[in-house]
Amino acid sequence: MFSYREETQVSSFLFSAMHMHSRQSPFAKRRERLWVLLEALKLPFLIVSNPVNIFYLTGFRGSAGIAVLGLSEAFLWVDPRYIQQAREQAHGVEVVEEKGGLLKAAGYWLGERRAKVAGFEDGHLTCAGLREVRGHVPSRVRLKPAGGLIEELRCVKDTEEIECIRGAARLTSAVFAEVIRLVQPGVRECDLAAEIEYRMRRGDAEGAAFETIVASGPRGAWPHARASSKLLNKSELVIFDLGAILSGYAADMARTVYVGQPTRRVRSLYGAVREAQQRAVEAARSGVQARDVDGAARKALARRGLARYFTHSTGHGVGLEIHEKPRLGRGERRRLAVGCVVTVEPGIYLEGWGGIRIEDTVLVGDSGPEVLTPASKDDWYVV
Amino acid sequence: MFSYREETQVSSFLFSAMHMHSRQSPFAKRRERLWVLLEALKLPFLIVSNPVNIFYLTGFRGSAGIAVLGLSEAFLWVDPRYIQQAREQAHGVEVVEEKGGLLKAAGYWLGERRAKVAGFEDGHLTCAGLREVRGHVPSRVRLKPAGGLIEELRCVKDTEEIECIRGAARLTSAVFAEVIRLVQPGVRECDLAAEIEYRMRRGDAEGAAFETIVASGPRGAWPHARASSKLLNKSELVIFDLGAILSGYAADMARTVYVGQPTRRVRSLYGAVREAQQRAVEAARSGVQARDVDGAARKALARRGLARYFTHSTGHGVGLEIHEKPRLGRGERRRLAVGCVVTVEPGIYLEGWGGIRIEDTVLVGDSGPEVLTPASKDDWYVV
Repeated sequence: MFSYREETQVSSFLFSAMHMHSRQSPFAKRRERLWVLLEALKLPFLIVSNPVNIFYLTGFRGSAGIAVLGLSEAFLWVDPRYIQQAREQAHGVEVVEEKGGLLKAAGYWLGERRAKVAGFEDGHLTCAGLREVRGHVPSRVRLKPAGGLIEELRCVKDTEEIECIRGAARLTSAVFAEVIRLVQPGVRECDLAAEIEYRMRRGDAEGAAFETIVASGPRGAWPHARASSKLLNKSELVIFDLGAILSGYAADMARTVYVGQPTRRVRSLYGAVREAQQRAVEAARSGVQARDVDGAARKALARRGLARYFTHSTGHGVGLEIHEKPRLGRGERRRLAVGCVVTVEPGIYLEGWGGIRIEDTVLVGDSGPEVLTPASKDDWYVV
Repeated sequence: MFSYREETQVSSFLFSAMHMHSRQSPFAKRRERLWVLLEALKLPFLIVSNPVNIFYLTGFRGSAGIAVLGLSEAFLWVDPRYIQQAREQAHGVEVVEEKGGLLKAAGYWLGERRAKVAGFEDGHLTCAGLREVRGHVPSRVRLKPAGGLIEELRCVKDTEEIECIRGAARLTSAVFAEVIRLVQPGVRECDLAAEIEYRMRRGDAEGAAFETIVASGPRGAWPHARASSKLLNKSELVIFDLGAILSGYAADMARTVYVGQPTRRVRSLYGAVREAQQRAVEAARSGVQARDVDGAARKALARRGLARYFTHSTGHGVGLEIHEKPRLGRGERRRLAVGCVVTVEPGIYLEGWGGIRIEDTVLVGDSGPEVLTPASKDDWYVV
């Protein structure tokens, strides 16, 4: 159907965890899904500037590169730092070394190809980047914002991706189960974060998907607090939010732990968040609108009079990036599909006091939601 | 001179390492430097979308926010996740909670202020982001690409920044000095990376400034190789490239180590890179053009017939981001100034065999270059 050569070999150090179910590489399958979209949009070329999308479509994992995918040919320009890596990793694209500006080279190439129109990733390409392309392409070539086409594809994960996320989630859970044993008064937040990230790395992670959050006491009321040098105190809640990257894919998980014997009030608040999270997980099914998963968590908290303390949306897609589509928030009508991987993470934040958040990475499976981060929610206090 | 209130207090958990030399906060001083540029460019408003620049100017360290700095007032819009954090951290801006799109809010605000023209960061704002602003601002408001104004300011570091980078560099060096003791045949690259990042964290780093590179044997020929599960072998070179982030600021350092007794050829190649690096460090002085620092390294390698194996530029600025201006590369005429902090990192890469890179973070000081990453270059083989 397309002039690309079939690839059967995937770089072993990147995709050692992958099971190949067909002779076609996952990259070739993804490019075929993209062609369908491009043909429907009558876009013969797409300029891909987002490195994550280049990895998704070609396997090249460098942080700088510009690809142009055409219906009958595809090129990847990289600077000399990445040329060897690109030649080894990239599938289905002609790799070109370029010293004088990657977008400029892509612009020239489109001109030579007598392109009439080419799409670009307007949610990623900067205004200066677009000017750079325009400056090197004949004026007859129309450059057309193509939105997040590849992000749309990435919304539904393929088998290989799900295996990677499953691995990242398993590691994230296992690391948390070890590190919770180190929780005690007098330990610094940032030392717990160090222990978490170290164990991720030792478990073959390429790193943390985001700066690990360990937020104790009043700092827990900042949903995105970093781990600081604050010491854990007795009778404080501690939010852990962590995720490993494995084979390029992220997981995302949060647990809240109490240092000491929780009071009745703390138990009741914890129970409320836990119930809200459970309800939202159960709602995360194929065909359901994203806003309804959010609504399930919000409704459960509203029943306890806590809805106003839940100040963010319930979750987001996760995969090659830590924040992907779909967003599980108010007003989001997009329907979940089998293969979506999302976080479910309601929380409550009480200024000056602290916060409680519980989060899982959840696969929307054939037969319902599957929690990929099984770390216990029962063992949540440390005496 | 400006209507901003003076701030004397800096968030202690962010800037505990800073020494205050005047009653004015560093953020207020930076905003004053920006006003001068804005007045010269006749820009009464600047839309700041890059979170790093928002941190630089206000102290707010969240990963999402939009600021508009005007000559007589300044606003910062954040979503509910960041509102408490913004209220505690941000200086000299009015903090506004916004649920319905930050760029949209900024657009409305500019309309209300009867702005005629506003600059935006065209090297950061995406095409879709610009469309979002345009959609909510009256058509009489001209939106003008303002290039990297704040990046220009950031090119020359102030006292507080230099102290932060010095700390990050000291930590990076100390971590390497510890981890080199773990180098031996049979150790995995990624386990050494784990040890490095763990020690950074334990030393109060917020994390690694980039994915730590440990590239042994032939993998060293990829200048940006990640640490893989490959085992170190005897008679191999290993490139370490690492940098800690401390108080928001990055350092960057590389050393190359040989496992075993180096042969004459290896010694000679190592000596060549070391000499090239030394020459380039010595060239990094106030008033010198960036290309001349690059030229110093390139010339030294050319004398040994190795210039063609040096496939990247000699260095780059480092600070809040790991890659900043100025670039120390061919054709870069920009002159270094006192307060510039740059990396100096020549290397040679021989496909199929390996690579050698030596890198320091260097401050362009009053009385010449100062190497901030003192880890030894003499103890470079492990027997």
